[in-house]
Amino acid sequence: MIKIGLDIGGTGIQIGAVDEDNHIIKEASIPTRRDLPFEKQVDQMVDCIRGLLDPVVDPQLTLENVASIGAGIPGIADARGVVINCTNLGWKHVPLRSAFQQRIYKPFYVENDANVAALAESVIGVSAGSSSSVFITLGTGIGSGVIINGAIWKGAHGIGGELGHMILELDGIPCTCGNRGCIEQYCSATALIRMARTQLPAHPESLILSMAEGKPEKVNAKIVFDAKREGDPLAEKLFRRYISYMGQMIGGLTNFFDPEVIVLGGGVSKAGDLLLDAIRDEFPRHVLFNELPLPRLEIASLSSEAGIIGAAMLS
Amino acid sequence: MIKIGLDIGGTGIQIGAVDEDNHIIKEASIPTRRDLPFEKQVDQMVDCIRGLLDPVVDPQLTLENVASIGAGIPGIADARGVVINCTNLGWKHVPLRSAFQQRIYKPFYVENDANVAALAESVIGVSAGSSSSVFITLGTGIGSGVIINGAIWKGAHGIGGELGHMILELDGIPCTCGNRGCIEQYCSATALIRMARTQLPAHPESLILSMAEGKPEKVNAKIVFDAKREGDPLAEKLFRRYISYMGQMIGGLTNFFDPEVIVLGGGVSKAGDLLLDAIRDEFPRHVLFNELPLPRLEIASLSSEAGIIGAAMLS
Repeated sequence: MIKIGLDIGGTGIQIGAVDEDNHIIKEASIPTRRDLPFEKQVDQMVDCIRGLLDPVVDPQLTLENVASIGAGIPGIADARGVVINCTNLGWKHVPLRSAFQQRIYKPFYVENDANVAALAESVIGVSAGSSSSVFITLGTGIGSGVIINGAIWKGAHGIGGELGHMILELDGIPCTCGNRGCIEQYCSATALIRMARTQLPAHPESLILSMAEGKPEKVNAKIVFDAKREGDPLAEKLFRRYISYMGQMIGGLTNFFDPEVIVLGGGVSKAGDLLLDAIRDEFPRHVLFNELPLPRLEIASLSSEAGIIGAAMLS
Repeated sequence: MIKIGLDIGGTGIQIGAVDEDNHIIKEASIPTRRDLPFEKQVDQMVDCIRGLLDPVVDPQLTLENVASIGAGIPGIADARGVVINCTNLGWKHVPLRSAFQQRIYKPFYVENDANVAALAESVIGVSAGSSSSVFITLGTGIGSGVIINGAIWKGAHGIGGELGHMILELDGIPCTCGNRGCIEQYCSATALIRMARTQLPAHPESLILSMAEGKPEKVNAKIVFDAKREGDPLAEKLFRRYISYMGQMIGGLTNFFDPEVIVLGGGVSKAGDLLLDAIRDEFPRHVLFNELPLPRLEIASLSSEAGIIGAAMLS
């Protein structure tokens, strides 16, 4: 049997047929068409799936062989497969499962994309074999997924797993969610970029500015890390501050939840060992019982294909 | 069969024999003797247990009938029953299980006292029947226990469950743990008292001061709540601030962990509905998906006997 995985993103949708060894047999992608009505968006995705199912390419690729379809979305769905909120696609209370099942009658699962990535990492990635893990994507925002004994933990009401919206600063920086002081406002790529842009006017000599072609709006997380590698003093200062925030966040996560593995993904994690070594050094300072063994901190090991493979793993 | 539960506290040790219906058949207490060497402290506790086992009082009370012994401690122990740290008793790396088993050879379990209270509430208290709960004691410090599917969640390395030491304020108020900005420094009784004492010099007319007999050092959490009930403006202001902190903390806990029930215990929780109603009103503002069902927030229902009963439940 094969499974279909959909990685539904704000700009594109990646769709793949995945075999029992979690390998993608065939994949395709379509642009996200926010401008279309919901039913047309689903038609578009189902057409793409039907296009994948070509037994001439591989004899497994038939509709009969499809065991289930899973979708990862940048949003939240309830137990009935209704997407409660998915801003990037303009979805609010849309019945994704029933819309799919009206077109292809197979078991259909929908899950937050960070949860999907967390699941994929915990089965075939860097947290494989662990009893518990927390996956954190450090990107425009912060996504996260919690895995306990091989299953996604979404909480009792399906609204958990959103580490990025725990409070890290009382009455702190306003967050896109309407709350203030969320972890997302201190640990995301966006937060690091904001910190850099705020400091740049006072440090016009910084390498950060020249690497961004003199344009503060072109600063990104990679530039800050690259400038830090070159020894730029402002980048060093920003890096230390960011690591302090990450250390306090991960130390607190350890004190409360103590997963076996903490996995960092998303754009910021591309900084690799520079980031990893610094946080591994910092976070134990914020752990209560830091003389005991601590969670293993790792960078995500799977490529962007994890979105398809993890979605296909949903059950 | 019966079980023995020990509630080992900083000033006293409560010991009880508990039947299969979680009722205490007989109990006794002894003072905590920090001044004694560890082995003598264990002798003292074992003597007390032997004293309880009197079949004349109840035919069940025999050593043969004891299925297991459990102890709750204000500290942390490892999987081998070695107490890693228990400041109030002066214990650091003491082999509590083996010391007990040298004297009475029965299965022996030792667990953090907040975890024990969380377990008791989840079996016979206000969170009974729930799939997941977080118990939070708001006292001198903040203790907490996490229950998932009927079992205490201590994390992968046994150091989790310490909600009070997640960060609520970056680089915030120094905590007794050596960290800064821990939840404990904003949501414990001690934190509320500190806030009151800081404000009192500027508000000598406050009812809080007269209720404390004019002595700031006599202010406690109960006085602040009582003065708020009387309409004292300073108490109202402190109350609002405390509720805001609690709301941000519980909202964040919901975003990440989303337990079915959140139980408040400890001295502050004696404020009852005044506290409960205000936090129930506040915390959803800090929840990302607050249009969906949220965790049920309750005050702990068990008396101090929960310490004995919960310890006896350990397995």
